[in-house]
Parts: sequence; structure tokens; C-alpha cells
Amino acid sequence: MTSNLAVNAQRIAADIDALAAITEPDRPWTRRAFTPKFLEGRAWLTERFAAAGLETRIDAAGNLIGRRAGTEPGLGTIMVGSHSDTVPEGGRFDGIAGVVAGLELARALADGGVALRHDLEVVDFLAEEVSIFGVSCVGSRGLCGLRPAQWLDRRVDELTLAQGIAEVGGDPGVLAPRTDIAAFLELHIEQGPVLEDEGIDVGVVTAIAGITRIEIIVTGQADHAGTTPMDLRRDALTTAARLVLDVEALAQDYARGPGHFTATVGEFAMEPNAANVVPAHVRLLIDARAEDRAQMEQFLAHLVDVAARRGAEGRASVGTPVVISDNLPAPSDGLIMAALDASCATVGASHRRMASGAGHDTAWMTRITRAGMIFVPCQGGRSHAPEEFAETQDIALGTAVLLNAVQRLDKELD
Amino acid sequence: MTSNLAVNAQRIAADIDALAAITEPDRPWTRRAFTPKFLEGRAWLTERFAAAGLETRIDAAGNLIGRRAGTEPGLGTIMVGSHSDTVPEGGRFDGIAGVVAGLELARALADGGVALRHDLEVVDFLAEEVSIFGVSCVGSRGLCGLRPAQWLDRRVDELTLAQGIAEVGGDPGVLAPRTDIAAFLELHIEQGPVLEDEGIDVGVVTAIAGITRIEIIVTGQADHAGTTPMDLRRDALTTAARLVLDVEALAQDYARGPGHFTATVGEFAMEPNAANVVPAHVRLLIDARAEDRAQMEQFLAHLVDVAARRGAEGRASVGTPVVISDNLPAPSDGLIMAALDASCATVGASHRRMASGAGHDTAWMTRITRAGMIFVPCQGGRSHAPEEFAETQDIALGTAVLLNAVQRLDKELD
Repeated sequence: MTSNLAVNAQRIAADIDALAAITEPDRPWTRRAFTPKFLEGRAWLTERFAAAGLETRIDAAGNLIGRRAGTEPGLGTIMVGSHSDTVPEGGRFDGIAGVVAGLELARALADGGVALRHDLEVVDFLAEEVSIFGVSCVGSRGLCGLRPAQWLDRRVDELTLAQGIAEVGGDPGVLAPRTDIAAFLELHIEQGPVLEDEGIDVGVVTAIAGITRIEIIVTGQADHAGTTPMDLRRDALTTAARLVLDVEALAQDYARGPGHFTATVGEFAMEPNAANVVPAHVRLLIDARAEDRAQMEQFLAHLVDVAARRGAEGRASVGTPVVISDNLPAPSDGLIMAALDASCATVGASHRRMASGAGHDTAWMTRITRAGMIFVPCQGGRSHAPEEFAETQDIALGTAVLLNAVQRLDKELD
Repeated sequence: MTSNLAVNAQRIAADIDALAAITEPDRPWTRRAFTPKFLEGRAWLTERFAAAGLETRIDAAGNLIGRRAGTEPGLGTIMVGSHSDTVPEGGRFDGIAGVVAGLELARALADGGVALRHDLEVVDFLAEEVSIFGVSCVGSRGLCGLRPAQWLDRRVDELTLAQGIAEVGGDPGVLAPRTDIAAFLELHIEQGPVLEDEGIDVGVVTAIAGITRIEIIVTGQADHAGTTPMDLRRDALTTAARLVLDVEALAQDYARGPGHFTATVGEFAMEPNAANVVPAHVRLLIDARAEDRAQMEQFLAHLVDVAARRGAEGRASVGTPVVISDNLPAPSDGLIMAALDASCATVGASHRRMASGAGHDTAWMTRITRAGMIFVPCQGGRSHAPEEFAETQDIALGTAVLLNAVQRLDKELD
């Protein structure tokens, strides 16, 4: 259907290495949004975008965009990309691989002399990771017109987020969703172990799981650990331990279903936390992620039952689970998934459908356009850590899939 | 066998109230050893001891001692007492009740014109609670010649423990066990709920439980909570939760035996403790207390088995339990327990034998002489808290038991 354009693995590796080298020297790989190193990385990327023949600009939301005009003005834009900011001490590939894939894809089209019907844009979204301002996906939310107004007043030392966006080159006063985007595609490392475990080249993402955070408070009594007989104590920890295992058992059960499901007690704080005092108070924070919203709602109802039952056992009181935050799942577009499947076959990449348990800019892009993602394997599923690693070959193969899918969608979409 | 001398409940209540009033004003009831408030309390106690006809002195270990000479010099000393220092924001009765009981006992003997054959000493031990220097039972250890030499160099700001002992009036350079003590008796609030629950006036303490602290480290892997499938994660928390319940089940089992036994996971710390990361590391600290040393050793062996089994289940690694500190149980003297039982019958106090799950100065005194304790009920078993409370009537009844037992032992011991 489309010719196999060559992507250049060496060029991809060199770009990733060069961007990685722009790091806080004492803690690789750190290039957090709104810091001097981030601006240095952006300057380098801007040059690379321009060298690839892209017309560069910073949009109002602070995203770096490289544009290649299509042959049929008004047909809309196919956008590809990810983000170049990192978490502290992590992220040599998280986001970066997707930005470089977009850049390489544009170069491959130029090298091959291929004109697309649609405009093509390569994007480096601003501040996908939780930034110094404590919020994430600042650029993609902004591009979608979904950045909360009160965020602009968030402050770190003397700097507000509004000023931060302005320093990057954006215009914090403007917030309007793009309406011209015909499709959005993102390549990203999996950040999980599935592809590596199964020896598969590419994951075609079916949805970005919804993330719901639930707090449970267990209240016992701070009695003397030596003088209070075992049958007269109200130990918050032993009840909390039962809840931890309840959450695990429920999650394992839901994970056996067709959709992606995880639940993790990630935060656990106990008081008074003194050797000779029976624990009086435990706070558990559960991170639950579901591809299927109905499953999440079922899990929440189950959790309320479980908490009530544990409370009724009379050891310690168990508060009703409280939803602290709740993000809905973001399903990928069917036409894009089909294009990605077909492109995997065309370029010879083994692939599987899979959900993303992590959040991504793509989740926001699904709100304004057809959007989809592919994953490439990463070593041991490790991410957000200095040892995060992905093989050049895997990223290059994913880039070839992306390029093929863009060409495919350029033909299909009107 | 002995006449029932009258103890004066009003006098007891007035003394406890007066001593309680010597507190840091903004956080009652606080009179920590080595602080100005403690010295103020000591000055007040010294006057009260003298007013009761006791010859007062501070011994080398820093204990306040009030002495009443016996009729048969060289027969030795019967000592009664406890401690007047408190934990921060707790301890209206913990220790104080025992010091005042000793004082009231001396007054009742004087009021009744009763001469004892033995010398009688009322003691206020220095720093029974964990003091500002981070160590406890400073005075009773000193009196027994068992205060570690290196403790003297412990420092808070500009003050060493040696200087603190000197400021109290002791001589830190002298450390020799008393060899003249024929018996030691202590009255204390129970600090647990058993007497109140069972409606019993007095607990005759069989032993002060040994306290063993055991650390277990659980090591998993800090994977992404959203992207790591439930069956591919190594969650340190879910394994630690199983261990918490193992410890509880073992302790409940051992507590069904004849001796006092408790085990509590009192400290529990998790890392990284971030909502979206699978827990990688948990440290548990177990506080185990046993009246019977054989039971403690059996428990430790059981714990090693349980930890190995949980580790072998393959979720997270479980380190071998490590004993961090280990104090042996201190059994009470049989003759003293018998005297206390008989005295309860004489004064009409219902009583039961019971172990002490908490540590006391008596534990050290068992190392150099016949020693024993009685407990009086405290409200809700609460202690080391502002709401700690004991009824005057209960303390007075306990004091009457103590007085009767002293008279009894004075006759029995040669």
C-alpha cells in the first residue's frame, strides 16, 4: 500500500544521545520543564527541527512545533510527537524517543522526497511530567484548551506557571483548542515489562487506562504494646494489612478480565509509629487503573464492601473509601489502531494490542482528535530511573511503523 | 498477723495533685528528668519526705531517698518507691503514685507509732522514663551498679549525663551496687486494661516481661504502578502485610499460653511511598514481650521460619529477622509475692497474679535483692497520655496492701 521509506537508526541514536547529554551534570538524566537545561534542550531541538526542513514555532501553550506543509491546504494536520522534559534522575527515553521518532519521520519523508496531502507537525509537548509546578501535561492540555485557569497562578519561588509558559515562548493568556488536527500519533517506550517478556516489537495501544486514587483511613487505639493483651487491642496496622491483601486479591481478580487493570497501595503511613505503642492510625492510598470504566466502577463498589466488612470485624474502624482523584480512560481511535496494525505488518514488526497503564499526552489529544499510540520495549520495564533503556533498533522499528501509519492515514483521512 | 494501719486517701490525693501541678504549664503533665521542673518536684518531695520524719539524701546514682531507721541495725533495708519523672505530656500517676504510696506508708507507720526492725527507705528513682539523654532507669540501674559507663558521656546540647546526675545531687564517679537491701517493693498503675476490665483491686506482679525487638526487612522492586501487570510485580508491601498478620497470629497463639505474651509491629516504614510506584522496601520492627524466656525463644524461632516461608513465596525478598535488642524477663521474688497475696487478703483487696508487660525500676532491683510489685487499676488502661488517671481509692487500697506487706516482710526477713 505504501512504500517502505528508510528510517535511519544511527540518526535516531545520535539525537537521543545528544539530547540526553543536555542534563544536570550531577544527576543524569535530568531536564525538567521550565529549568535552564530544558530551555537548552529546546534550543537544540529547534535547530534539529529546522535542519530537517521543518518550520518551527512555539504555540500559545508552550509546545515546540515543527511544521511541514501538505499538498492539499485545508485538509488538516497529522501531528506526531511526545515530550522532551524528564522526571528528576530519569527519562533518557521516556518522551524523548517519541520526539526523535517524529523528527526522524519528517527527515525520512524529506529524504524520500515524499509529499503528504496533510500538513505534518512534529510536536514536543511542554511539561508532560509532573513539573516543578506540581502539575503535568501542561502543553497537551493547553493545546486541547483543557488547561485549568487557576493553574496559571501556581508558584515556585518567584515564578508562576504563567510566567514559566511565557519564558518558554508561549502565551499564557491564550487557551483555545486546535480544531485542525486530523490525527495524532505518539511513540513511547512501554515503561512496563510486557513487550520484552513476550519478545514483541510493538504494542498498539488500545486505551490509556483511567487512573483513580482512593484513600482509606483505619483508626485503632494507641495502647501500650507491652501491657495491652492481644485480645483487648485495636491495632490499626493489622486491619490495614488485611485491606492491603484485599486490594491485591481484588486487583488480581480484575486483572484476569479482558481489560488492563492494576491496583496498588502506593502510599502507606502509620501513626504513632513507635516501637512500644499499638498502631492507632493508618492511611492507605490506592492507585487503581482500568482500561474499562465499568470495571473501575465495579472495583470501587467492591472496595466499599470490603472496607465495611473489615471495619465490622471489630479490630479497628475502617473509613469509607474516598475517591481523591478520578481520570477516565482514554480509548484510542479505531481507524488509527487499524492503520498501526497494518503498518506493523507492512514493516515486519511483530505486535500486539495493549493498554497503557501510564498516562500520556495522547490521553488529552483523544479529547480533540483521532489519536493513538505505539509502545516500543524498554529494558526490564524500568522507567523514571537512571537505568531506563531502550534499544536503538526497537525505536527505529517503531519509527518505521509510525512513518508507515502516517502515510497510510494521509491517504485515508479526508 | 499484723494490725491494719490506716492510710490516708486524702493525703495521697493531695500529694499527687501537688506534684502533678509542678508541670510545664503548656503541656501537662510534663516533668522530665534533668529539667528545672523535675528539680522543682524533687525539692517539693524532699520537703514532704522530711515532714514525714524521713532522713533525706541523694545517693550517688541521683535517687532521692528518705530513710527511717529500724530497731535492729545491720538487719538491712526494706525499700519502697518508684519514680517522679514523666514522659512528655503524660504521667500524672505513672511512677508518682508509687513514690507517694511509699511516702504515705512511712507517714502511716509514724502516725501509728510503729517501729520496724529493718531500716525503711522510700525512694524516688532518677529518670525511669526515657530521658532527654535517650536512656531510661538511670537511677535504678545506678543503684544496682548496672549503669553502662559510656552512658555518662551522652550529651544533650552542652550537658552530659554525668553533669546531669551531678546537678541532681548525685556523684557520677561512684557506681557500686547496694548490698544492704533486704527487699524492694513498688506500687504502680497497671498501664493496661486488665484490672479495670475484671473489676479487680490489685495485681500482684509475677514478673516483668522480657522485651525483644526484632527487625525484618522486605525488599521488592519499585516498578510503575500502572504499567506493571499484577502477576509481574514484586510488591514489598503485600509481603509485609502477610508478615504483619503472621506476627499477629503467632502472638495470639502464644498469648493463649500460661505466661504473658504480646507481639506488636510498632514501626512500619515503606519506600518509595509514592502513589504511582509499586512499594520496593518495607522495614518492620516487632516489639515482643514474654514473661517466660523459653516462650520468647520459641517465638523467635517461629518468626525465622515464617519469614523464610514468606520469602520463598516469591513475591518479595524477606530478610532473616534480626534481634535489635533483647532484655530478659525479671521474675518477682516468691516470698514477696506470697506476702503481697496475704496482705491483699488482710486488707480486703481483691487481687490476681499478673505479669507486667511494661518495664519498671523493679526489673533492675530484682538483680540485687528480693523484689516485687503491685499494680492498681488505671482508667481504660491508658498511660503516657494526658488522660492517664487512677482513682484515689484504688491507690489508697494498694498503699494499704504495700504497708501490710512491708510489716509482714519486716517480721519474716532476717
